[in-house]
Amino acid sequence: MVLTDKNTQRTKFEGAWKVIRHELLAHLKSCGMPEEAINWYARSLDYNVTGGKLNRGISVVDTVEILKGRPLTDEEYLRAAVLGWSVELLQAFFLVTDDAMDASITRRGQPCWYRVPEVGLIAINDAAMLEGAIYHLLKVYFKKETYYVDLLELFHSVSYQTEIGQLIDMITAPPDEVDLDKFSLKRHSLIIVYKTAFYSFYLPVALAMHFCGIPTSYVLSNSSTPVAPYEVAKEILVPLGEYFQVQDDFLDFSGVPAQIGKVGTDIVDNKCSWCINTALSVATPEQRKILDENYGVKPTPEEEEMAKRMAEGKNGEEQGYLGEAEKRVKAVFEEIGLHKIYEEYEENSYKKLTRLIDGIDEGTPGQKGVLKKEVFVAFLNKVYRRQK
Amino acid sequence: MVLTDKNTQRTKFEGAWKVIRHELLAHLKSCGMPEEAINWYARSLDYNVTGGKLNRGISVVDTVEILKGRPLTDEEYLRAAVLGWSVELLQAFFLVTDDAMDASITRRGQPCWYRVPEVGLIAINDAAMLEGAIYHLLKVYFKKETYYVDLLELFHSVSYQTEIGQLIDMITAPPDEVDLDKFSLKRHSLIIVYKTAFYSFYLPVALAMHFCGIPTSYVLSNSSTPVAPYEVAKEILVPLGEYFQVQDDFLDFSGVPAQIGKVGTDIVDNKCSWCINTALSVATPEQRKILDENYGVKPTPEEEEMAKRMAEGKNGEEQGYLGEAEKRVKAVFEEIGLHKIYEEYEENSYKKLTRLIDGIDEGTPGQKGVLKKEVFVAFLNKVYRRQK
Repeated sequence: MVLTDKNTQRTKFEGAWKVIRHELLAHLKSCGMPEEAINWYARSLDYNVTGGKLNRGISVVDTVEILKGRPLTDEEYLRAAVLGWSVELLQAFFLVTDDAMDASITRRGQPCWYRVPEVGLIAINDAAMLEGAIYHLLKVYFKKETYYVDLLELFHSVSYQTEIGQLIDMITAPPDEVDLDKFSLKRHSLIIVYKTAFYSFYLPVALAMHFCGIPTSYVLSNSSTPVAPYEVAKEILVPLGEYFQVQDDFLDFSGVPAQIGKVGTDIVDNKCSWCINTALSVATPEQRKILDENYGVKPTPEEEEMAKRMAEGKNGEEQGYLGEAEKRVKAVFEEIGLHKIYEEYEENSYKKLTRLIDGIDEGTPGQKGVLKKEVFVAFLNKVYRRQK
Repeated sequence: MVLTDKNTQRTKFEGAWKVIRHELLAHLKSCGMPEEAINWYARSLDYNVTGGKLNRGISVVDTVEILKGRPLTDEEYLRAAVLGWSVELLQAFFLVTDDAMDASITRRGQPCWYRVPEVGLIAINDAAMLEGAIYHLLKVYFKKETYYVDLLELFHSVSYQTEIGQLIDMITAPPDEVDLDKFSLKRHSLIIVYKTAFYSFYLPVALAMHFCGIPTSYVLSNSSTPVAPYEVAKEILVPLGEYFQVQDDFLDFSGVPAQIGKVGTDIVDNKCSWCINTALSVATPEQRKILDENYGVKPTPEEEEMAKRMAEGKNGEEQGYLGEAEKRVKAVFEEIGLHKIYEEYEENSYKKLTRLIDGIDEGTPGQKGVLKKEVFVAFLNKVYRRQK
């Protein structure tokens, strides 16, 4: 039951941002901050928080609507959107710092914030302020709620988990020090669960559940076994987030720019991706040798030049020009049948997740304040067989 | 009533760190993190959290002892020390990120964390984990307390205030773009209140007050007017923190390395310091011209070389070799009588703070759970006329 179409939904969600943005700037003003500081913060908010796909933020509002089973009042909508935008603020904090750490070039079609000339590494403090904004907003909008402390703890623990995931990712796959012995599917799973799944999938749903007053434990009228709904949600959303990130990794390998909106660079960047880890798990010694020698190898200057020239005349419907090393890695991926392995992975994930969702007990029809299958079905349908 | 001497105190406080450090690493282990990640985090904790003066952290425990009016039990001590170490973790988060933003070279006598070769900008994520550790510890040690949410809000608001202070500092005084028109004593005060006073002075005391169960409002038995003790504390500790930072600024100008443990670099680094702002407020047009032309001007390579050579043969009891630009700025500071202005500032601050402290109503003698003058007297005595 998605109550509005995707564009209207986005516009409405962005409308709430105007209120939130105003609250954040008015607070700075009330602290006696000078105009330059307020303008700087406004620019950081505009540059880093809006402009993304907003999937995570909107999914909070969607989930609230599903759980309540009716459209929200204006006041409910705004407060649910505050939670949604808090997830987007958290994401912005991660992206700004990650880009600086990875020396990335562009983000959402514009230079990364730390690369804006007058910004530089002030970006680190700006990122901290994006994170700080979350707790200011939660205090303004939720201080009186009994679940206020649950919201705070949720943001704390999920932020910490994401930072832990970022740490293992960075020490497993430093950009300029390739050692495939450090990689494994197990390590890959640990990284993506911590770095992506908690904040992208569990966090939005858990926030919506608190907002709807779902307690940490309840007993359904048709049963005597207590349900731990946040644990149930986590047990579905963490594997769903894992599946989502595996897709992301696979699309980086198999997608073309017109489809995925970017050129895949995981191979060249020595990323600890599902593709390389899957390849390593089945590679013959000969294939392993090719991977060791070519994974994470940067293109030569001539290859870079060639890639740039060819990209100009293209419409993005084909793979760009590949360097020799990257070509060899991709050839191994094809040899081991990565497309087929992925297809099986996708079907198995779908089946497994559907089974988990089917196992949710909703109690008697129409029962309020309990977990609903539809929350997870909505997520799964957005993710299953996505091509971008 | 300081119950133990300074060294014993420090040793005891460091003993609590062993327990806290173990808790943080055990938690990472319980998340299934690989050994390399745990070792990395341990190294970051050891490198960045310990090794400072620990004044802020120890002042939490001191304040708790004063408020309780008796020595703490072992359990009380550990929990008070968790709050103290949380302040130190927050400080570590700020220092690691500030050093990366300012491109600083050394910190506490060792290379800044981001300059350790294998670390680099992973330092940004490490800093975020130092901050994240605070909320993990508060949850482990204080979740059941009624004041738990107050502790969380205190850390949130003080962190955000400090980040706001860091922002105005960075846009007021960028290292390589000198514009003294942006400076003023008013701007200086705003920066140091937000960037230093809240987290260094108000935070430790407010944490101790919550720990001792002091409510946000109470009525004393000898009066009918309600007291807002956290506001009272803030109104003393914020100006005290301001005074402390003015001292820091003045010592950077007047101190010699053997005394202050470092070579003052505020003039060369274009810092928005009390000294330059005071000079600007009284400078003649001629003096202003000298300041405009010489403040924030880096030494020439020859001057740098000379400074390095001369530092080697010295015992630190005199000023190092100064570049010409820095000399001219210091001459103006002397001309305007900065030493005397500072002396007056210091005496006035002392008097003003003493008056504020005297104004605290402690109720009837021995009354428990209320604010005590001694908390502030202890702070003021540590700060007054300090030479390092």
